[in-house]
Amino acid sequence: MGPKRCAVASEESLMRIFTVPEAPSSTLSVIEQEISSNLAGFLNENIAAIEKPLHEIEKDFQSAMIPEEPMFVSDYAQDIMEQLVAHSVHTASPSFIGHMTSALPHFVLPLSKLMVGLNQNLVKIETSKAFTPLERQVLGMMHHLAYGENDAFYEKWMHSAKTALGAFCSGGTIANISALWIARNRLLGPDGDFKGLASEGIMAAMLHYGYKGLAVLVSERGHYSLGKAADVLGIGRSNFVAVKTDDNNKVNVAAMRAKAQELSERGIKVMAIVGVAGTTETGNIDPLPEMAALAQELGCHFHVDAAWGGATLLSDNYRHLLKGIELADSITIDAHKQMYVPMGAGIVLFKDPTATDAIEHHAEYILRKGSKDLGSHTLEGSRPGMAMLVHACLRVIGRKGYEMLIDKGIEKAQYFADLIRADEDFELVSEPELCLLTYRYVPRQIRQAIDRADEQERIDIYAALNRFTASMQKRQRESGRSFVSRTRLTPAQYQHQPTVVFRVVLANPLTSKQMLNEILAEQKGLAQSDPVFKKYLAKYMA
Amino acid sequence: MGPKRCAVASEESLMRIFTVPEAPSSTLSVIEQEISSNLAGFLNENIAAIEKPLHEIEKDFQSAMIPEEPMFVSDYAQDIMEQLVAHSVHTASPSFIGHMTSALPHFVLPLSKLMVGLNQNLVKIETSKAFTPLERQVLGMMHHLAYGENDAFYEKWMHSAKTALGAFCSGGTIANISALWIARNRLLGPDGDFKGLASEGIMAAMLHYGYKGLAVLVSERGHYSLGKAADVLGIGRSNFVAVKTDDNNKVNVAAMRAKAQELSERGIKVMAIVGVAGTTETGNIDPLPEMAALAQELGCHFHVDAAWGGATLLSDNYRHLLKGIELADSITIDAHKQMYVPMGAGIVLFKDPTATDAIEHHAEYILRKGSKDLGSHTLEGSRPGMAMLVHACLRVIGRKGYEMLIDKGIEKAQYFADLIRADEDFELVSEPELCLLTYRYVPRQIRQAIDRADEQERIDIYAALNRFTASMQKRQRESGRSFVSRTRLTPAQYQHQPTVVFRVVLANPLTSKQMLNEILAEQKGLAQSDPVFKKYLAKYMA
Repeated sequence: MGPKRCAVASEESLMRIFTVPEAPSSTLSVIEQEISSNLAGFLNENIAAIEKPLHEIEKDFQSAMIPEEPMFVSDYAQDIMEQLVAHSVHTASPSFIGHMTSALPHFVLPLSKLMVGLNQNLVKIETSKAFTPLERQVLGMMHHLAYGENDAFYEKWMHSAKTALGAFCSGGTIANISALWIARNRLLGPDGDFKGLASEGIMAAMLHYGYKGLAVLVSERGHYSLGKAADVLGIGRSNFVAVKTDDNNKVNVAAMRAKAQELSERGIKVMAIVGVAGTTETGNIDPLPEMAALAQELGCHFHVDAAWGGATLLSDNYRHLLKGIELADSITIDAHKQMYVPMGAGIVLFKDPTATDAIEHHAEYILRKGSKDLGSHTLEGSRPGMAMLVHACLRVIGRKGYEMLIDKGIEKAQYFADLIRADEDFELVSEPELCLLTYRYVPRQIRQAIDRADEQERIDIYAALNRFTASMQKRQRESGRSFVSRTRLTPAQYQHQPTVVFRVVLANPLTSKQMLNEILAEQKGLAQSDPVFKKYLAKYMA
Repeated sequence: MGPKRCAVASEESLMRIFTVPEAPSSTLSVIEQEISSNLAGFLNENIAAIEKPLHEIEKDFQSAMIPEEPMFVSDYAQDIMEQLVAHSVHTASPSFIGHMTSALPHFVLPLSKLMVGLNQNLVKIETSKAFTPLERQVLGMMHHLAYGENDAFYEKWMHSAKTALGAFCSGGTIANISALWIARNRLLGPDGDFKGLASEGIMAAMLHYGYKGLAVLVSERGHYSLGKAADVLGIGRSNFVAVKTDDNNKVNVAAMRAKAQELSERGIKVMAIVGVAGTTETGNIDPLPEMAALAQELGCHFHVDAAWGGATLLSDNYRHLLKGIELADSITIDAHKQMYVPMGAGIVLFKDPTATDAIEHHAEYILRKGSKDLGSHTLEGSRPGMAMLVHACLRVIGRKGYEMLIDKGIEKAQYFADLIRADEDFELVSEPELCLLTYRYVPRQIRQAIDRADEQERIDIYAALNRFTASMQKRQRESGRSFVSRTRLTPAQYQHQPTVVFRVVLANPLTSKQMLNEILAEQKGLAQSDPVFKKYLAKYMA
């Protein structure tokens, strides 16, 4: 950047930024105009295709000094186009299929601006007014989607001052923490002289109830936010117990029951079991009805983490995959994942409208008792009006529109799985149940080598495959044409050894079948152009 | 609303919303155009001045059914203008001085749209790239503002993969919880065979370290989020101990020391003390240097909740009010308060860059060890790129610009305090230290009556004043011209009895002195037009 015009801090120039909008011809207005008229074009043109190394990017963000002097908005806009936007990630790209982001519907852009312009604070009615009933309605709609209670139920509870059918959160992590927080406080509630865990803390609760500790059981495929929840809530990460899955990445309920029994014998109370409805790594859904039965046996809370898969409930064709979710005491669903809402829209739902009593809190200047303030039942305090964007998507897309989007994603994953199966150099590692699958590149020669290898050779080949998979994923990302992510599983076909795999999420409605073909072709090319890999492969060509 | 045109869910119409922007002449584009060219005018025109009762508003948000069919964006836009925007709160209004919202600089609107269009996820570099160093720089700048370490410090730590100088959060509540989470885990860390509280939970930690419980001490003026933190973290709300303040709403450190001593004798470990730097209700700042000394005596964590007042550090003229904050182990600052950023921008800072080790977590498909992913050190998971808006404000407004804004607010509060003192019908309850003050309407006759009342009469008069203050505040809000909030204090001049007061926050740079005069005049008018109050007052007119 060349030297900048010098802006001066004066009362007048300060007042201008609060009162005078940017001129239509200003740099920032022109940027905004481009976003409005052609977002995809804007992103394609302005995000650099080739990755700049992080340490290079960091050079533009080196100073820890807050600049003394102000800066013209247009100069700032130019700076961030070059330094930030150019080196951000094209998460909306149809060939960016590695994470749970997608293209967004266009109308969320102007609505986001309206949301920021209104700058409501949902913690209480005095700073949000109509946004409060709107958010309660969205929670009601999502509750109805999952639990399907009757009209009288929603008439009674949806706008009730005493309760909340759920909570909006910044994301699924806070949603999961909120659910387990409520589970913990309800399980160890007031009892005689004991005022409850919320009041007296875990130590007193353990002594009162005669437990040596608390535990949460979840599949080994459970999201890392649950371990974080166990830490935050004072349960301890080692009491967050990962239970093995069957070969289809669904938790083994018998193993979970046995684990619960073992913990119980050691005086540790299982506080909650968590079902995963759409694991982050493979998209599989735990056997929810059996888990609900187990939770009942154990007298514990049943939470379902459907942050990713919950949107599948919107499809009448596939919602049966989540059968049993209606038995959960609480459910996490992220609207910013498969509901096509911008980042920052997590939701937790509670089957029992009085569940939030266990975390109710008040304050004098705010959240007075008897008010309908949402803040008395949320982990967060001040929050923006993101519920408006979910409301807009639910109404503009409609259930049938979502059904099409969900179905399209699942069918695309099936198509991609077929492509992989049809190609002798690729191997499908986890079958798609939702629109997520994992696979890897394993040329025929290597597969044959594995078959005839002894144990030590096999371990060596596995290690090499892991290295090559990780390196291919990195090189593909850096080349900027497309992006798949990677993770490490322990699949049966690799004797439950740690296995690095490619992972794709096919939620973006703009991802075409052609692109999927190209991604596989690109990966083949990457492998064939890697001299280390070629040399390695040559060993097995004989 | 009349009947709507019927939108039909078809693949083609669905694809349109993901690929074709709203036409410039569409309802939503016209709304957006109005926001861009004249936000204040848009808000003034479209937010109804007179309050509609909440139960009336709720009628538009009654159905818990997700609509089956899609809806045209323009129809939706018209609906929300009438049902939502019209009945939202004009938080940017210069006469809305009751809460911590303000007019925003204009440039944050187009930047917010850019942020949503980019839809980065800050949990990891693969979905945020340059946003990660940008966020780290903002954290570095805020850290430097509070702690003022030298260049070498920031060069070493700001972009370090191993650590984080703080965390961006959705708001101050998550910031406070994060700080106390780290405090708890560090205090009860690994020791010999004990793997630490994070791993083994509170119960095991108490047994290992020989404590009967944990406590957090804070002023009785502390924010309610701290009580929530004590609940979530498993400490228990009753172990979140409110210490009395002196008459100036600053915590009495001697009383805090005595309380700590008493807890210690009962086997309860004080895990942290929290200083408030800008209480939410009165804006006063605790004696931070003495608290730092006490924390050292107690061997506990010292957190400063400067969610509101932290921005004062940007003014060289007033930053001395927060002297001692540099001694804090952690600090909460909300950029969406006095830093004029839209809702959703909380920050927590850590003095020691290795503090976040105590909550570090990893996951295979994301947040791999050695990466610079921000998500390995945050309570939240997926998060939007709000740091960009803070970055923009810091650079465009500059430190000197912020200084003017902060100074103006404080001086305006002093002006308002003078107005109140000069009017014999009003009474200043808490002196402004920052730009926050409390007062009430107490006509001379009532004050005289209090002076000659016996104890029972005094209690009756106090109760009446509380009722009238609350009712005036409500009527003023409902009339829609201006808004002050209310809270309940226990001031010395009312013998520490519960006292309902008006509360104002003068951060909006567009609030004029004239408006402050009018607000007092309006309140007088409200009192005089209240038949119940008039009748009550008549008793004392003799």
